Amino acid sequence: MDREDAEDLFLALTHDDQAELIAQIPAHKRRSWLRILPLDEAADVIQLLDPELKNLCLDLLDPESRREVLGLLAYADDDAGGLMTPNIVRLRPDMEVQLAIRYLRTYSKYHDETIYYCYVVEPDGLLKGVVSFRELLLAAPQKKISDLMKTELVMVREETDQEDLAKLFSKYNYSAIPVVNSVGQLKGVVTYDDAARALEEEATEDIQKIGGMEALDLPYWKTSLWTMLKKRAGWLAVLFVGESFTASAMARYEDEISRAVLLAMFIPLVISSGGNSGSQASTLIIRAMALGEVRLKSWRKVFWRELQSGLGLGLFLGLLGFAKIVFWPNAVARYGEHYVLVGLAVSLSLVGVVAWGALAGSMLPIVLKRFGLDPASASAPFVATLVDVTGIVVYFSVAGWILSGTLM
Amino acid sequence: MDREDAEDLFLALTHDDQAELIAQIPAHKRRSWLRILPLDEAADVIQLLDPELKNLCLDLLDPESRREVLGLLAYADDDAGGLMTPNIVRLRPDMEVQLAIRYLRTYSKYHDETIYYCYVVEPDGLLKGVVSFRELLLAAPQKKISDLMKTELVMVREETDQEDLAKLFSKYNYSAIPVVNSVGQLKGVVTYDDAARALEEEATEDIQKIGGMEALDLPYWKTSLWTMLKKRAGWLAVLFVGESFTASAMARYEDEISRAVLLAMFIPLVISSGGNSGSQASTLIIRAMALGEVRLKSWRKVFWRELQSGLGLGLFLGLLGFAKIVFWPNAVARYGEHYVLVGLAVSLSLVGVVAWGALAGSMLPIVLKRFGLDPASASAPFVATLVDVTGIVVYFSVAGWILSGTLM
Repeated sequence: MDREDAEDLFLALTHDDQAELIAQIPAHKRRSWLRILPLDEAADVIQLLDPELKNLCLDLLDPESRREVLGLLAYADDDAGGLMTPNIVRLRPDMEVQLAIRYLRTYSKYHDETIYYCYVVEPDGLLKGVVSFRELLLAAPQKKISDLMKTELVMVREETDQEDLAKLFSKYNYSAIPVVNSVGQLKGVVTYDDAARALEEEATEDIQKIGGMEALDLPYWKTSLWTMLKKRAGWLAVLFVGESFTASAMARYEDEISRAVLLAMFIPLVISSGGNSGSQASTLIIRAMALGEVRLKSWRKVFWRELQSGLGLGLFLGLLGFAKIVFWPNAVARYGEHYVLVGLAVSLSLVGVVAWGALAGSMLPIVLKRFGLDPASASAPFVATLVDVTGIVVYFSVAGWILSGTLM
Repeated sequence: MDREDAEDLFLALTHDDQAELIAQIPAHKRRSWLRILPLDEAADVIQLLDPELKNLCLDLLDPESRREVLGLLAYADDDAGGLMTPNIVRLRPDMEVQLAIRYLRTYSKYHDETIYYCYVVEPDGLLKGVVSFRELLLAAPQKKISDLMKTELVMVREETDQEDLAKLFSKYNYSAIPVVNSVGQLKGVVTYDDAARALEEEATEDIQKIGGMEALDLPYWKTSLWTMLKKRAGWLAVLFVGESFTASAMARYEDEISRAVLLAMFIPLVISSGGNSGSQASTLIIRAMALGEVRLKSWRKVFWRELQSGLGLGLFLGLLGFAKIVFWPNAVARYGEHYVLVGLAVSLSLVGVVAWGALAGSMLPIVLKRFGLDPASASAPFVATLVDVTGIVVYFSVAGWILSGTLM
């Protein structure tokens, strides 16, 4: 592979892979590879190295770049300051277009991120406007930059969270957003590819949490078996402890079960239907909240919507369950002489448990968010566990009411 | 609100909202609102209208735009042809830079998508290269386009799926990718914002499927209650039928349960632990496959990895369960004289069921993909249901083996 192809390949790698490669190649080759990275990406890669190698690599950068990378390392990995690239071309408002173009021809070869905007900055560093390369190219040469630039800017602060940043990108369809400090001085620019990567990471984290585990932070194959076990065992243990209350709940109904073993048979069916309905509702609301479609203040609307959905779905499954038991060939032999009452008990419990699942599943992410926690922690298994325990109580209460005097 | 602000707001809306607005505003205002949309977005919006209104709106476009929008409507909504914008500036390889710039100054105001590349096309329409506005601006005026252009291009075919397209964008970090037909003629260009929207839609679909339902296709509040019920009821019914095999499985062990009611109490705990471990594994693998980290051919590696994880997690939960039963204050009163054997039966079943959950959960998405189905259909509830039924058989087999002669 020739050098150019190798460089293209290197640039297309993830930061994890780039860091791994940098760590493995001979020391004398590191400099040229590090220096082809845009500064914001170099900072992300260096961040991932061991402390010792990190310092070695920082020394390989030219003084100017090292200063900027060190500046970037001071930001959190997941805010605008950490994602931005600091070396961008700055124009002055009073420049003429032809001068700006000459200036750009001279200086922009040092600015290697493919950004399609030039930011217009006063001598005191305050961001005043933006003009695209395209607009510069198409404008009359004598025009002033201040007449050309767009002054109504979408900008973010250094500490803006990457999730909010990603939402701005998807709202405005910009390919870059400038980053300013508290007084409005231009500090750098975040490009859409960094935001897209952030958006993808957030979706991955949400999906893993919905699956009932901690987010991995690294790709599947980069995660060691031990880390994988730790990320999964924590939630499994929490769910296990939660689910062990089903045993306590059933212990309360030990007498009923011993009198009518038949009843125990339908427990997994009833409670898991509630869990499934809860899992649907919670993933639906978690994603709707991540996309900004559902907000805290609309919880009442969600409540009513999910109550209706839950009752509708519960009635549907209740009818299905009733039909299955009552129209079973030879139902008497299988479910005893009171099979219609058994069918009624199962199907009424289903209505209650499925509706309760939809309500609990939809409200839990909202409650978590209300208390500053991640809504995605209301994972499918978590909601299912919650609904399982209450489902057992609902089931035996309904069964006790319908079957007292006959089976119980 | 003045017209400009109103337009900005309109352009920032989703296609669904834009379509709704177009349908609601007075007929004489439709034209000006439709015409501010880039052609590819206009096509997406018109696609969403009722057939009658669709034709009315098509008539409001100028003949040239109508022809292009009709062309776009012929493509599927989710492939490159459906996402691309067809009206882009084309340069010839033998143009000089200064002529190209003059040409662009004249014609590019009709091309309203903010694309930062110019595509270089031979008279026969074959795509030859690409040059960015930035490069044009920075090049010497007498240089030939053919000397400036990049000829190694990433391009896609019209029928390329949006998921593959999104992967290309995240791999190469381009802001636009050209679309060609089977002979290599330039048909249009897809911009990163369309790809980002596609990526977000795919993540939403995956999350909803993981939650155990059909993908909604519309935002939460845009989905009618009836549609919502239909999208959720189908999978709930399938899961219900699947789960009803737990009742059949338990019926096989009716005698064992009536002899030792105690055993029934641990059923939800044991089977749901398997379900949780399966739900973790399946969401992990579904997302890893969506990101291209796990491929079909690496199924053996996944199998071994998940067997190890599953056994590790199973041992952990097994120990937890054993401790909980055996060290319970007054265990004899609660679990009877054979409480150590009961603890052993529960904890051994846990090892088996949790490991089986991890294996089933990780293999199911791969199997679905192998048969051309969507891996995300291996939802958490689906895997849980699968594991519940087998979990009951495992539990009673283990319990029968350990407790025969004592409790059973």
